[in-house]
Amino acid sequence: MNLPHKVKIVEVGPRDGLQNEREIIPAAVKVALVDRLTAAGFANIEAASFVSPKWVPQMATSAEVMAGIRRRPGVLYSALAPNMQGLEAAHAAGVDEVVIFGAASEAFSQKNINCSIAESVQRFRPVALAAREMGLRLRGSISCAFGCPYQGEVSSDTVADVVGRMRDLGCDEIDIADTIGVGTPRQVQQVMARAAGAFPIAQLSGHFHDTYGQALANIYACLEIGVTTFHSSVAGLGGCPYAKGATGNVATEDVLYMLHGLGIHTGIDLGAVVDAGQFIASHLGRKAASRAGNALAASRAAAQP
Amino acid sequence: MNLPHKVKIVEVGPRDGLQNEREIIPAAVKVALVDRLTAAGFANIEAASFVSPKWVPQMATSAEVMAGIRRRPGVLYSALAPNMQGLEAAHAAGVDEVVIFGAASEAFSQKNINCSIAESVQRFRPVALAAREMGLRLRGSISCAFGCPYQGEVSSDTVADVVGRMRDLGCDEIDIADTIGVGTPRQVQQVMARAAGAFPIAQLSGHFHDTYGQALANIYACLEIGVTTFHSSVAGLGGCPYAKGATGNVATEDVLYMLHGLGIHTGIDLGAVVDAGQFIASHLGRKAASRAGNALAASRAAAQP
Repeated sequence: MNLPHKVKIVEVGPRDGLQNEREIIPAAVKVALVDRLTAAGFANIEAASFVSPKWVPQMATSAEVMAGIRRRPGVLYSALAPNMQGLEAAHAAGVDEVVIFGAASEAFSQKNINCSIAESVQRFRPVALAAREMGLRLRGSISCAFGCPYQGEVSSDTVADVVGRMRDLGCDEIDIADTIGVGTPRQVQQVMARAAGAFPIAQLSGHFHDTYGQALANIYACLEIGVTTFHSSVAGLGGCPYAKGATGNVATEDVLYMLHGLGIHTGIDLGAVVDAGQFIASHLGRKAASRAGNALAASRAAAQP
Repeated sequence: MNLPHKVKIVEVGPRDGLQNEREIIPAAVKVALVDRLTAAGFANIEAASFVSPKWVPQMATSAEVMAGIRRRPGVLYSALAPNMQGLEAAHAAGVDEVVIFGAASEAFSQKNINCSIAESVQRFRPVALAAREMGLRLRGSISCAFGCPYQGEVSSDTVADVVGRMRDLGCDEIDIADTIGVGTPRQVQQVMARAAGAFPIAQLSGHFHDTYGQALANIYACLEIGVTTFHSSVAGLGGCPYAKGATGNVATEDVLYMLHGLGIHTGIDLGAVVDAGQFIASHLGRKAASRAGNALAASRAAAQP
């Protein structure tokens, strides 16, 4: 079974990773983090979220962050845009890609946005149309694709249905997220294969959480069926505010260590990502939640005289 | 690619996991841990080590532990036996399987036991012969099979050579260990396939450390090529005393979560292992180093009224 030669990593730490931190992080720190990630070589960084600051206070400085970063030509900077107001703010801030979202679980959708899955996707139609008119790239994000904290199992039919709805809104990329980290490799292959029946696999991405330690095995399983884009978070920042115990986006450092070990090209300098991870972990006053990051940082420290 | 229907997990927490703990753990706590693991359904538990207490003070109570546990018929209780004295003590204590060991790295062998790989295996000959005469099962353990803290790369030729030497001593099982956790899935498949050229794959086992977060992906890759025995440590206990930063046997809870998710039969009750992990972590005064263990314990606590 051949693995891809090249994989794209979407670094989501600055947005998905940091959004649930209780202490407000100064915009300057976020700018420094994004700049370090840009320098490390990522082609796509989720940097901001134009949601109401009442919902997510941590993201209130998104325009300031976008204005402060040193942009590298060719790098896509992404932001969440839940409505027209958010989209306009994202556009004004110079975002390259906007992200719209939905769940593959009716229970999750009802509990968190008080509407059905179908309605939730439909509500994004004006945002999607306007984003495309503005020339922005559009990504759809599907949460709870491998399990739901409220209803438990999620059907791959539902995942494929939501993929189809997001495709019809004109998404350029659709990410399939294991929000609570419960998936295992063969299930992941099965769900991704179903999703690939509704949307080109080259435009699908896998977004895994490491809550149960399964993320790298799941990514490896995805590589085997031809998925070539993955989301990850430097220093393992983040989690899901709604799902109990669901800490843990998979750490970018761990993913890169595996990909590079597999001989897969990413264009990213792992050492620079380790530095970025240690930088933000140090700001947050805790150890990075990345095994590879901490092991590499420790062996580097040990090698110094 | 078909995965095995059934996998054997060798639980190594009570020996490999605990041996480097600085604080001496009372024999009664070790007995309680082994009893919990026996009740959870493991067919093989590494419970003791008959090395000199000067080398490994934590293992000085091994005879007491073996005398105290409630044995379940059919379960193999294993112990390290580095020499004839250790073997006799292990036999007297009622051990079912003795473990001999060597490295796949000349640098590691020289640094830690002051002799070549070939000499180190040769020194076990009398132990191996006597163990077989005593009717004990014999396992050979090969450390640093995927990388070495001193010499870096390790050749799969060397691994296969050591496997052949241990086979010639009459080993019933040979485990291939990633002592410093540096391996990645395709490398692991390649090395295990080479080892399987020298010894039946049904008697080979994989022993992975999660230092770089790669262990589950590596185990999944091994399943794909037909490896059916793995070593793991409840609560992620353990590491390697010689290798800097090499904390982290892969946690049994994480491995079982994946195997059961893959529909693979283990005969082990994951809930009972989570309990055992929380029990020993609580005794050690720290959080279990198992993502699945902690997530399952948290969701169980949340479900209680």
